[in-house]
Amino acid sequence: MEQYLVGVDVGGTNIRMGIVTPEGHVLKKIQYPTDMSLGGMAMMEGLVSKIKDFVREGTRGVHSEIRIGIGVAGPIDMRRGVLIAPPNLPDLHGFPLREFLQEKISLPTAIENDANAFTLGEGWKGAARGALNYCGITLGTGVGGGIVVAGKILHGAEGLGGEVGHMVLNPEGPLCGCGGKGCLEVYASGNGIRRMTLEAIEKSGGKGIVHKSKEDLRKITSEEVFEAAQKGDEIALKVFNDMGSYLGLGLVNLVNLFNPEKIVIGGKVSRAWDYFIGSTTEVLHQRAMKGQREKVEIVHAECGDDAGMLGAAYTALKLE
Amino acid sequence: MEQYLVGVDVGGTNIRMGIVTPEGHVLKKIQYPTDMSLGGMAMMEGLVSKIKDFVREGTRGVHSEIRIGIGVAGPIDMRRGVLIAPPNLPDLHGFPLREFLQEKISLPTAIENDANAFTLGEGWKGAARGALNYCGITLGTGVGGGIVVAGKILHGAEGLGGEVGHMVLNPEGPLCGCGGKGCLEVYASGNGIRRMTLEAIEKSGGKGIVHKSKEDLRKITSEEVFEAAQKGDEIALKVFNDMGSYLGLGLVNLVNLFNPEKIVIGGKVSRAWDYFIGSTTEVLHQRAMKGQREKVEIVHAECGDDAGMLGAAYTALKLE
Repeated sequence: MEQYLVGVDVGGTNIRMGIVTPEGHVLKKIQYPTDMSLGGMAMMEGLVSKIKDFVREGTRGVHSEIRIGIGVAGPIDMRRGVLIAPPNLPDLHGFPLREFLQEKISLPTAIENDANAFTLGEGWKGAARGALNYCGITLGTGVGGGIVVAGKILHGAEGLGGEVGHMVLNPEGPLCGCGGKGCLEVYASGNGIRRMTLEAIEKSGGKGIVHKSKEDLRKITSEEVFEAAQKGDEIALKVFNDMGSYLGLGLVNLVNLFNPEKIVIGGKVSRAWDYFIGSTTEVLHQRAMKGQREKVEIVHAECGDDAGMLGAAYTALKLE
Repeated sequence: MEQYLVGVDVGGTNIRMGIVTPEGHVLKKIQYPTDMSLGGMAMMEGLVSKIKDFVREGTRGVHSEIRIGIGVAGPIDMRRGVLIAPPNLPDLHGFPLREFLQEKISLPTAIENDANAFTLGEGWKGAARGALNYCGITLGTGVGGGIVVAGKILHGAEGLGGEVGHMVLNPEGPLCGCGGKGCLEVYASGNGIRRMTLEAIEKSGGKGIVHKSKEDLRKITSEEVFEAAQKGDEIALKVFNDMGSYLGLGLVNLVNLFNPEKIVIGGKVSRAWDYFIGSTTEVLHQRAMKGQREKVEIVHAECGDDAGMLGAAYTALKLE
């Protein structure tokens, strides 16, 4: 009997689903916008019917064993399969996601948080292929991550482990959304780049980031800072350089704590790779412990938008 | 047939051995000073004959299965069982410890680094009993540690993981022996306390740490700072308070990354518990992520000098 894995990546903007073989080949995939207008519960009901349709169409006529894997944003209590304060689905705090899906779909279902799913996807089919001990970092609006130890995601006591975005890098740094100060996230996220850019423009007396009026500046995005860097804007280049140094400090911690073979970095901010990775590796080489540092490879994610979907399918494959 | 575990803790000052049952009862133990005068190789040869004698005497007349577990300072390449730049045994860099012991003693032998052995000992019979996900920290001359994930020590790719003493807490902080700057070790170790005390005395214009001449001050030890704190010396109290805050930042990282049930803190500097733990838990409560913070217990080590020996015995018990 054929086995098919259905990987589902529930993002804040888009939902992606794929039918994936146990070898990791994507047979079919779809993507549609996440509709939160009717609230989290209605979104979940819609998701269930979409998954059912997708499974029915995708496996038509083939006698098969099907498993579902779902990646969602935000912390999950992995023992109970319950969402904890999901950032994109605020009304689903305490929602028993695993139980709900298993009941509605009647198929074996694995759940995982999106950053862990990204990490597993890159380990299965992407830039961390073959590694048993590795770390994943997603540089997006925030900074997420996952840690794989001896082939398994580090969940910790309740599934809340692996928050690499909330390592303290500068105890007197800016306030972070998590309640801490100077976390990796306040430097290496899209929001962090935006903040650092506005600070740098303020400091420079308004120079830099070409052709921007004051009004435009307030709305500046990290993508625009990236474009400015590509055009050689000095402020943008300095911001990415500084961001890279802080990311390097984060990697020092990961390298010393986890002795990973690889650290894979993805997420939309990682498009600016060439503008930050130099200072990242410089800090890593200056500061990390020798044995660990000589072992580790820092690699750019390869699966693009499919990483989360692939990782979700992988959790279904490994479901016990 | 009875099973006996022989736990051996090779410290820089003392070597401790115990015969331990699979339930963790210590049947017999000895301790003698580490003699490094003839170099690391002679020390190892001496250790082998001591272990043989100890096993022969300790198990006389009992038909038994015996396994040896050894904890030694410094990084070990766990795949190959080779010492890497051991701080107390500099001439044993690259020494194939596991192979050497197995050949000389002809018994199944497990090796582990001393900080991991401490952590396992406290998890087996001490303050972290019953926890499957926990961290250990030893505050000594330096700061060591171990991480247990789902019941197993986190070794990483080569056994160099778990260096909690070398998390960066302050990127502009003092140089650390590891090559980094502002690591936990420069604040929370005996050496760190000594340095912070001398800096504080300098800053205060020589006041504080009562009854100390300038000559005495240069030789001040962290034990003397602890004694001064007990007598109410303001500088000593402030140093432990500051040290506790930095330790708290380290715990924030551990809590956010590992979602541990417990963090067990031991080592000789932890005798000053009452003088630093207040600021440690304050920082932890201010800055760690809520879900993780509400779960974790910060506990003082319970096994005293036996932790490393017990943990070494435990690694023998779990030898596959």
